[in-house]
Amino acid sequence: MTNQAFLLLIALLMVQLASSANTKQLTSGIPFGEDKAPRVSWNRLVALRNRANFIGRSCKEVKEKYVQSEDGLYYLTTANGVVYQTFCDMTTAGGGWTLVASVHENNIYGKCTVGDRWTSQEGNSANRPEGEGNWMNVKTFGTAEAATVDDYKNPGYYDIEAEDMSVWHVPNKTPMTIWNLASIMRYHTERRFLKLFGGNLYQLFHRYPVKYNVGAYLSDNGPSIPIVYDLGDKESTKMFYGPNTRGETEGGYISFRAINHERAATAICSGVKPKGGQVDAYCIGGGGYFPEGNPHQCGDFTSFAWDGYGTNRGWSASKEMLESSVLLFYR
Amino acid sequence: MTNQAFLLLIALLMVQLASSANTKQLTSGIPFGEDKAPRVSWNRLVALRNRANFIGRSCKEVKEKYVQSEDGLYYLTTANGVVYQTFCDMTTAGGGWTLVASVHENNIYGKCTVGDRWTSQEGNSANRPEGEGNWMNVKTFGTAEAATVDDYKNPGYYDIEAEDMSVWHVPNKTPMTIWNLASIMRYHTERRFLKLFGGNLYQLFHRYPVKYNVGAYLSDNGPSIPIVYDLGDKESTKMFYGPNTRGETEGGYISFRAINHERAATAICSGVKPKGGQVDAYCIGGGGYFPEGNPHQCGDFTSFAWDGYGTNRGWSASKEMLESSVLLFYR
Amino acid sequence: MTNQAFLLLIALLMVQLASSANTKQLTSGIPFGEDKAPRVSWNRLVALRNRANFIGRSCKEVKEKYVQSEDGLYYLTTANGVVYQTFCDMTTAGGGWTLVASVHENNIYGKCTVGDRWTSQEGNSANRPEGEGNWMNVKTFGTAEAATVDDYKNPGYYDIEAEDMSVWHVPNKTPMTIWNLASIMRYHTERRFLKLFGGNLYQLFHRYPVKYNVGAYLSDNGPSIPIVYDLGDKESTKMFYGPNTRGETEGGYISFRAINHERAATAICSGVKPKGGQVDAYCIGGGGYFPEGNPHQCGDFTSFAWDGYGTNRGWSASKEMLESSVLLFYR
Repeated sequence: MTNQAFLLLIALLMVQLASSANTKQLTSGIPFGEDKAPRVSWNRLVALRNRANFIGRSCKEVKEKYVQSEDGLYYLTTANGVVYQTFCDMTTAGGGWTLVASVHENNIYGKCTVGDRWTSQEGNSANRPEGEGNWMNVKTFGTAEAATVDDYKNPGYYDIEAEDMSVWHVPNKTPMTIWNLASIMRYHTERRFLKLFGGNLYQLFHRYPVKYNVGAYLSDNGPSIPIVYDLGDKESTKMFYGPNTRGETEGGYISFRAINHERAATAICSGVKPKGGQVDAYCIGGGGYFPEGNPHQCGDFTSFAWDGYGTNRGWSASKEMLESSVLLFYR
Repeated sequence: MTNQAFLLLIALLMVQLASSANTKQLTSGIPFGEDKAPRVSWNRLVALRNRANFIGRSCKEVKEKYVQSEDGLYYLTTANGVVYQTFCDMTTAGGGWTLVASVHENNIYGKCTVGDRWTSQEGNSANRPEGEGNWMNVKTFGTAEAATVDDYKNPGYYDIEAEDMSVWHVPNKTPMTIWNLASIMRYHTERRFLKLFGGNLYQLFHRYPVKYNVGAYLSDNGPSIPIVYDLGDKESTKMFYGPNTRGETEGGYISFRAINHERAATAICSGVKPKGGQVDAYCIGGGGYFPEGNPHQCGDFTSFAWDGYGTNRGWSASKEMLESSVLLFYR
Repeated sequence: MTNQAFLLLIALLMVQLASSANTKQLTSGIPFGEDKAPRVSWNRLVALRNRANFIGRSCKEVKEKYVQSEDGLYYLTTANGVVYQTFCDMTTAGGGWTLVASVHENNIYGKCTVGDRWTSQEGNSANRPEGEGNWMNVKTFGTAEAATVDDYKNPGYYDIEAEDMSVWHVPNKTPMTIWNLASIMRYHTERRFLKLFGGNLYQLFHRYPVKYNVGAYLSDNGPSIPIVYDLGDKESTKMFYGPNTRGETEGGYISFRAINHERAATAICSGVKPKGGQVDAYCIGGGGYFPEGNPHQCGDFTSFAWDGYGTNRGWSASKEMLESSVLLFYR
């Protein structure tokens, strides 16, 4: 999708929203291209501030205890008492989904440079087999509203006791109020798989460390979990990845800790299950060392541009995929 | 100004403050050079915490609704419900000014290195024509209190519906409580120009992207708006910039998205309107690529030290300017 | 200590905790290796949220005013009204200790690279004699819960009027709820020395700038203060540093602004007083320039691995020391 096409899409979505019952959401957005910043009543601000009185560890708890059905920012409290704001999807498949993280590629030309928080910010080096280690620690960064312009990780990532995950691929720079509508792919799991792995990704990745040289491709990969699509399907997913990827993956899954031919570890393969060892072409995040073509595989979106930027040829993902952030939700 | 002269200035300001009616502000400051950290009564802390009950999207709203006249930190709420603290100037020209950002040069020797958030943190490269893109996105960073020691950007930058701007040039490391008095230049606009450009800089810079190669110098620059000085004047402003700059600018304006001879884009020219294409010598922030003398023009304070550090010769700005942060307010 | 040994220690501590009266603390932790994320009652969350009603500038004030005796996260308010959460040690030697900072070495192979916030993130350069300058400014970063996986500095660092310090060396990645038990060394001062230096490190380091070329080794060092051990002793401290260090230091002290042979400045020597000029082998943090072996001494843990990673030979510290964060408390 070109930039112009994207702007057109946004414009169309605005019209769609304006003519729907969802106008309250629209007025609280900050879409660019609008004539000016939105007007919001004082009563609306009071209502938003009153959400600070809700007490729960997850959007699911807030939804159930306080009967909330509007998507948007809510306050959550961790087991240790950390209070934070994040986005709750209160509508998809019953709602109650907590945004806990986003993976955003700020510069595909930068190979494990600043901004590659889900891989390494200090280059491609065997000295740091875990890289930043952020899949497996309690460090946080970014903000919910900026989840499509920067990496994001909040305390819910390690605190929430969840059962399922939901994933949205949202074009970069999309305003929060239209993430849902602007997404290019959305899906969730339904089998409560997280109960088997400690309740969240922090725990799962302690069982399956995202670290160079922990095992061999295919045989030492982490779990692959079936998904249910909320937007898109197996076929559209395949088209977002390069043609070579289509032959090496099976659609309809989210996969964790996938290892490549050279023993480099990636964190998440969104929408697919690896059937080979070129996982760096379609799985995101990872350890701090990728031996092949050093340092060209190293980065949050690994080697999504291996055969050119957004060409969708060879191993290269499409421009839509490359320029979308991956938003991770728990429920 | 030398470091010693600066310390002397601070000391003088302390004496001035101590002998003024402004003592409450002084006691809540954290100036260094004091014998010890300040004592503050519990009642004062309670009063500060009670500000959390104020609900408004801007300092102007807080001032009007809650009749506040003291400069300092207040809580604001965005249209999406994000709550944050920032500094309100409740006194200048009627008050109600919200600090939304600061541009701080952490290392003029670093050419688009870490800390150059308003330009590029990953070098000078045509691959990233917008650089970090922070003039045009909803990413936030820094804190109000640290606005003179680090870059700062809060949600007000993109959320507030404003009409005018105010700018303070404050020597780096100045404590918040004496920013006003320690400033080397302060001014504001009065013509409600932001109403024409969407209500804030986020919207304005979507109309005039801060991006390499969007146009030619002079002909494709963004708007220049007349200013009213609160401290300083056209003449003192000229002396802060290099002698060559004086011949290429007109005083008494704040200008946006100024382009240089090589099609590099800068964001803000503070106090001046460009009449030529060497804007990198006197305009701050910018896109991610500056072709001339690669990478020597790349950085938050672009090529303010082109002819030496603080020499105020040729194109070099004065040391006072180079070592001051640029604080941006909305009203 | 190997990774396996560390995991074993954690496991043992869990058992110990589970069989003690301290179960409340355990249930609110996020230890990895657990079968799943902990369950916490809604009443517990309410109790944690109610801590937001406490008003005080330090854990000492909160403890005294609200009779709190549980270690954990509390809300504090600065003299300027900044509200933040941090960890309070409410038990050691009378309690009331506020965690204000941690120094964490994210990559000993990176020489003043990203993550070396207490030294320099932009290389080893005489152009930046103070480096990041964070010992002497009001910039903040990190979170309390992540104090063992990243650098941390909160507003208390410069705001609190304190008398004494406490220091914990906690193995990296240890969850907050077991920091105390997992520590390899803990001590505090008792002589109210901070009253002589302005009440906190921000003030102390303005008197003794952490800056290259401010003086000569030994003769221009800052103060060394006697310590009282809460865990460990002079002998165990010595073993954490390299054999060469043992001959150049005196145990039982915490020392500030220690200068090396080449006029490089370090910030804190934990547990020891320097008797020579190789302070970079056992003192942490520092200015932005270390001439010897450029850039091999530059970093948050300076040259703790001068004679190899964790070898504990020559000038190299032990692996335990190298892989622990240094947590700084005030009271």
